[in-house]
Amino acid sequence: MLAKGLNMNIVLLTDFGYQDGFVGVMKGVIKSLSTHVTLIDLAHSVPDYDILRGALLLEAHYSYFPKGTIFLCVIDPGVGSDRQPIIVKSGGYYFVAPHNGILDLVTAIEDIEQCIEITNKTYMLESDANSFHGRDIFAPIAAHLANGISMENMGDEIQYDWFLNYPFSTYNEEEKTVIGEILSFDKYGNALTNLRARKGIKSGRVLEQDAKFCDYFLQGNDRLPNLINGSFGRVEIFVPEKNAEKHLRLRKGDEVILYLK
Amino acid sequence: MLAKGLNMNIVLLTDFGYQDGFVGVMKGVIKSLSTHVTLIDLAHSVPDYDILRGALLLEAHYSYFPKGTIFLCVIDPGVGSDRQPIIVKSGGYYFVAPHNGILDLVTAIEDIEQCIEITNKTYMLESDANSFHGRDIFAPIAAHLANGISMENMGDEIQYDWFLNYPFSTYNEEEKTVIGEILSFDKYGNALTNLRARKGIKSGRVLEQDAKFCDYFLQGNDRLPNLINGSFGRVEIFVPEKNAEKHLRLRKGDEVILYLK
Amino acid sequence: MLAKGLNMNIVLLTDFGYQDGFVGVMKGVIKSLSTHVTLIDLAHSVPDYDILRGALLLEAHYSYFPKGTIFLCVIDPGVGSDRQPIIVKSGGYYFVAPHNGILDLVTAIEDIEQCIEITNKTYMLESDANSFHGRDIFAPIAAHLANGISMENMGDEIQYDWFLNYPFSTYNEEEKTVIGEILSFDKYGNALTNLRARKGIKSGRVLEQDAKFCDYFLQGNDRLPNLINGSFGRVEIFVPEKNAEKHLRLRKGDEVILYLK
Repeated sequence: MLAKGLNMNIVLLTDFGYQDGFVGVMKGVIKSLSTHVTLIDLAHSVPDYDILRGALLLEAHYSYFPKGTIFLCVIDPGVGSDRQPIIVKSGGYYFVAPHNGILDLVTAIEDIEQCIEITNKTYMLESDANSFHGRDIFAPIAAHLANGISMENMGDEIQYDWFLNYPFSTYNEEEKTVIGEILSFDKYGNALTNLRARKGIKSGRVLEQDAKFCDYFLQGNDRLPNLINGSFGRVEIFVPEKNAEKHLRLRKGDEVILYLK
Repeated sequence: MLAKGLNMNIVLLTDFGYQDGFVGVMKGVIKSLSTHVTLIDLAHSVPDYDILRGALLLEAHYSYFPKGTIFLCVIDPGVGSDRQPIIVKSGGYYFVAPHNGILDLVTAIEDIEQCIEITNKTYMLESDANSFHGRDIFAPIAAHLANGISMENMGDEIQYDWFLNYPFSTYNEEEKTVIGEILSFDKYGNALTNLRARKGIKSGRVLEQDAKFCDYFLQGNDRLPNLINGSFGRVEIFVPEKNAEKHLRLRKGDEVILYLK
Repeated sequence: MLAKGLNMNIVLLTDFGYQDGFVGVMKGVIKSLSTHVTLIDLAHSVPDYDILRGALLLEAHYSYFPKGTIFLCVIDPGVGSDRQPIIVKSGGYYFVAPHNGILDLVTAIEDIEQCIEITNKTYMLESDANSFHGRDIFAPIAAHLANGISMENMGDEIQYDWFLNYPFSTYNEEEKTVIGEILSFDKYGNALTNLRARKGIKSGRVLEQDAKFCDYFLQGNDRLPNLINGSFGRVEIFVPEKNAEKHLRLRKGDEVILYLK
């Protein structure tokens, strides 16, 4: 018999931070059930309760992991309420998460092969508390998936619903412009927009200022807004070796214009 | 011969943070001695020198790890002084730590099977410095334990002493009230109290305000103190999707009252 | 055939932080190419773009890892510009990094056995973006190294250049004093200096105040500057259980004097 979880990867994404052991204890639960699984941290300092940010992260990074990887995604302000715990199979990957929008962007890229509401208590921990489903439901479910239990055994098929209020961008065919907005900021203060990275961007405009489109960061104008196809697969606003959010006083929702000619 | 450390888990808990490599270098020491051990981070952003917080973390999470797990716990403001480095076996787990109170709560739950003061230099790194026993003493000791060296070989049996000044709670049988206080705050600003999670709580009182007892976070009253049996196995004070510490201006030592009828 | 990457360690050092998944996605790339490699985090909360700090970290910690370890070091403000991606073999270790000074201190300790500019696209990911060589170049190169591909196949031999503007210290033979300065601060607010840990320090002077030289932290004078041979292998300035940077208002470049008699 093969060792349980051999060659399986579980990738963890949460807003749990690094000071309370909430991530560590989920790993304890997983390792108690699945000795040989490999645990990889995607990110745990996502801002508190920021589901959109989690969705952006997943969308940007999931495809760089081996097919079959199980993503354990717990940004879960509604823990214990009637929001459903789900497993989604999509693009050859498994996503274990609350049904609250965190999977909206990744499931918009690949077809959803299957979506299960987790209901089978056999694969959960017993617990008196209702405040930590990461530990009591999502972690053991991910471990059992890694051990080869099929997701059909864990609950009932449901339809996936979209929850995120994701802002659309506007394309003007005649003027060859795209208008979008700032969604969030990364660790360096670079602004992530709702505009996907693309070829053919000539320049742009941010906060009434012209913005140079750059191939790499050091090409950017000092102290001014610059644009780049960034690490999230999105158009980003940056200032070279500075924090653009603070330096340019950018805010979520600020408009960005791309000129394609 | 089996590979050294095969199937053994070492769990690391420190206040070393993530910017200096202090955790990473301990892992280097361990991997140099014990090739196949699995390393799991419990938490490293514990506030500087906060031994009580480390004790609360261990108490909350240790039992979710497989029996035999070695906990390497280094919150150690007294490093190099006459505080003793110890190994405690308790509840089927091993705890390698300074003898400064960080194990006080976990050893109050399970019987202490054995307590050893680490004195055998064979199992330490040679070092001119006296400022980093995490690297020079605790990490190699944990690795040698994982390799099957017995703790008796590492030093002499001593009696475990309690160091924490842990505040007691007061139970009023007649009025069915419990009075406790705030000990610390988690990443979300939820307040951890000295009151263990329990059944039968009807409501409570915090800072002269009534506090609703909730089964899950979104049940809570907005902008007001609410109570829940939380992720640390303790009664916590929270505000839904807000930072209770900042929002309610809570402080360590603030009184909490539970009504059990 | 052996499993790819078996018994190989890749150690990751970046300024990517823990909120964006930039470290996680590099691990996804590595695990996709090298199933059995062991991934160890050295540190990822290095201050943004702080190459000197990364160099200090590597110098302090590399020798505690097993020989053959591959260090993947990505503090890379010049990503995409003409700065070269390199592999350096030194002291039996491999360092994969941008050629920007991050390896200056570690390569000053051990002879450089070989230095290769990475040019072979076979071992990179294909990418339209030029903003994330950690994911697209450095991570896959480290994985292929772990799989046994030799560094000669990855590019052309070049000469290693030093980039850091590292301040020298001054030794006065007659007065037996050493004059140095503050380089950086660790998580606790202890000041790292450009003076290596050494025997024979009697006392010192910091910001016009006498500084006691201590064997361990609790020996230090409260509220005053104290000196110790610290965890980075350097002389550090500290205040017991306090943040010396804030408490003494220390700054980078502040002078430190050691008295050796």
